[in-house]
Amino acid sequence: MQVPDLFVSAPGKAILHGEHAVVHGKVALAVSLNLRTYLSLKGTTAGSVCINLPNIDTFLSWDLCELKRLIPYSCGKTEEVKRLDAELVRKLREFVGVTNGNLDTCNMATLAFLYIYLSVFGSGELPSLTVTVWSELPTGAGLGSSAAYSVCLSAALLCANGTIPAALKEWEPAARWCQEDLELINSWAFQGEMIIHGNPSGVDNAVGTWGGMLRFLAGKIIPLSRVPLLRILLTNTKVPRSTKVLVARVKDKINKFPSIMNPVLDSVDAISCNCEKVLSEMTCEPITGEHYNILEELIDINQHHLNVMGVGHTSLDTLCRVTLTKGLHSKLTGAGGGGCGITLLRPETESSVVQTTVKDLKDCGFDCWETSIGGPGVQQHSAASVKEEVLEILKRTGRGGQQECVASLEPLD
Amino acid sequence: MQVPDLFVSAPGKAILHGEHAVVHGKVALAVSLNLRTYLSLKGTTAGSVCINLPNIDTFLSWDLCELKRLIPYSCGKTEEVKRLDAELVRKLREFVGVTNGNLDTCNMATLAFLYIYLSVFGSGELPSLTVTVWSELPTGAGLGSSAAYSVCLSAALLCANGTIPAALKEWEPAARWCQEDLELINSWAFQGEMIIHGNPSGVDNAVGTWGGMLRFLAGKIIPLSRVPLLRILLTNTKVPRSTKVLVARVKDKINKFPSIMNPVLDSVDAISCNCEKVLSEMTCEPITGEHYNILEELIDINQHHLNVMGVGHTSLDTLCRVTLTKGLHSKLTGAGGGGCGITLLRPETESSVVQTTVKDLKDCGFDCWETSIGGPGVQQHSAASVKEEVLEILKRTGRGGQQECVASLEPLD
Repeated sequence: MQVPDLFVSAPGKAILHGEHAVVHGKVALAVSLNLRTYLSLKGTTAGSVCINLPNIDTFLSWDLCELKRLIPYSCGKTEEVKRLDAELVRKLREFVGVTNGNLDTCNMATLAFLYIYLSVFGSGELPSLTVTVWSELPTGAGLGSSAAYSVCLSAALLCANGTIPAALKEWEPAARWCQEDLELINSWAFQGEMIIHGNPSGVDNAVGTWGGMLRFLAGKIIPLSRVPLLRILLTNTKVPRSTKVLVARVKDKINKFPSIMNPVLDSVDAISCNCEKVLSEMTCEPITGEHYNILEELIDINQHHLNVMGVGHTSLDTLCRVTLTKGLHSKLTGAGGGGCGITLLRPETESSVVQTTVKDLKDCGFDCWETSIGGPGVQQHSAASVKEEVLEILKRTGRGGQQECVASLEPLD
Repeated sequence: MQVPDLFVSAPGKAILHGEHAVVHGKVALAVSLNLRTYLSLKGTTAGSVCINLPNIDTFLSWDLCELKRLIPYSCGKTEEVKRLDAELVRKLREFVGVTNGNLDTCNMATLAFLYIYLSVFGSGELPSLTVTVWSELPTGAGLGSSAAYSVCLSAALLCANGTIPAALKEWEPAARWCQEDLELINSWAFQGEMIIHGNPSGVDNAVGTWGGMLRFLAGKIIPLSRVPLLRILLTNTKVPRSTKVLVARVKDKINKFPSIMNPVLDSVDAISCNCEKVLSEMTCEPITGEHYNILEELIDINQHHLNVMGVGHTSLDTLCRVTLTKGLHSKLTGAGGGGCGITLLRPETESSVVQTTVKDLKDCGFDCWETSIGGPGVQQHSAASVKEEVLEILKRTGRGGQQECVASLEPLD
């Protein structure tokens, strides 16, 4: 079975407002982050399956006959996504050589790939192919890099299998799938996330699939119809933190001072609702400076609230202070305690201001990217529409199995 | 009529929690600040009344016969404090030479003094005396310096007049008056505050009179029975600000984002209540590190909330950052937007840490005092019990009328 070549990409995720509060039943707004993960899939005749993940120096290859032995007995239709096939996961862990611990990024990425590949193609002939995935996203920074990976895998493999049609018309540079196909991509991406994260919320894969902005409340994920594209800086303080520890810290503080902390959560909830309202207004009326004033005020207030919850960090204070000297407003995004922050840029913010800000932040030891939030979800691309430097990386490592090691991702200027 | 010599002092005031929130019907906690205003009253035979205010380079003297002409017709009993005698105020403004504007500190202090002097002594013979007032408090910094002045004046003049007895027994270094006398002192001090401020809340003179801590809610002032004495640093950023403008800014923000801001006010209210509870526990059980942990957490949370209200300032951020590097927690006190901040010291905080912190803050251009909150209100002192440097200043300028100019108050180390 020969599969068609294809390129897909999916965005990362940032929390605009409501991180931590969402754990306590409040609204969170998750937005797509236009640092994307790119996947190239190539049909081959080598009788093997290769996966190349240059970001994490992973280049693996298996003979098709090896993989055939792993095909689950009860391989259902790919249109029906069921619960994770625990038996297949167990067999794959054994096959890959992870029994108990040692679940590093490489193993997880491999497991997720093989799981989706075998589930999607298991009921028919296994195709010989090479998949190369490269991401602009830093891993483990709470930016949904694993979900973007899973979304790319699902879209590419479902499309290669013919379960969903190609989104791309011949003359188009990039195109998106219809709602029904996106639902299927998202379901399979969620399977990948379950393998990688155990018990994911489903927000990250939903953002990777639909892009734009999602409202997340009490486990329910509602994609918002229209949101404006917002220029931002994304900064990674590179201060390591444990989401689990930070979530526990907030919970402890709420238990210690309920009368003080519960109103703060209510206020965060209202920030998310106000933000959603302003963003919706920006799509249906002329965008004014006042819209941005409000967005900036909401960012500032929420950053203070996150400090009240105890998930701030001196590195994040530095981010806020440095950007404020340029008139720019920042908040942490995600778990806090270090990690990443976002800085809102206005449409009129001059490139020179952005550049000096990026420089100042890098001088603090941070990584910094100029990007946007609210952009499209998973897309199929023509080769010509993929950014040259990305295409170069995908091609260089996409020719076969284990190849030369590619320098790991450096932040783009 | 010859009056006895006496020394009195009254503390300044700081808001521990609830500034701004109190304007919107929430609790505020006002505490006495042990930067004190000292008054020396000396009976003379010069047939004149002298007032010396070395802090503001004011040294004035009037012949008794001049003053007699100003005595109000209907000078009632000093035990009954009525509303401000508008006719006396009008005559005094004319006498002092303020007709419309030009209400500088010197004029206001003079008006308040003459008003209380004439009201207290007007029904009998006017005594020849010299009053010298010197304060450790910076003026116009929201620390209740005018109230401490009015409280000292009331206590000294009521005592000189015999309306209240001397608090001091012969062998005592310092003593306080009984509740009934304090009520009277407070009422007359409030008259002084009305002359100086127009429409005072009454909190400042109540703190100056009773000391300790007061709960202020919806215009009602409730002195709290027992509070511990807390070591603090008081820092004056010297950034000028307008309380009126800041109060209006908070109001605007509440109107703009009611669903976000009202919970913040509720949270501040809960902070005040939690703080009151902890302080009360500290007076009836062994003081532990956990008591201080909570006080520090409440300070941090409230400082963030005040930033959310829009009354922060980069100078206050600097204060918080500098003190936090020493493990000390700070918040603004009063109106914010610059002005003053307080930093909690623990009983075990070493003197060397305090000294380097004070030095670091002075290097930022701030004034800084090590002092305490929760100490006693108005007191009568024996000359021997007044700090030597204060006694020196009071004596140097207290010998007669206009004398040599004394260098204005420098912050103590």
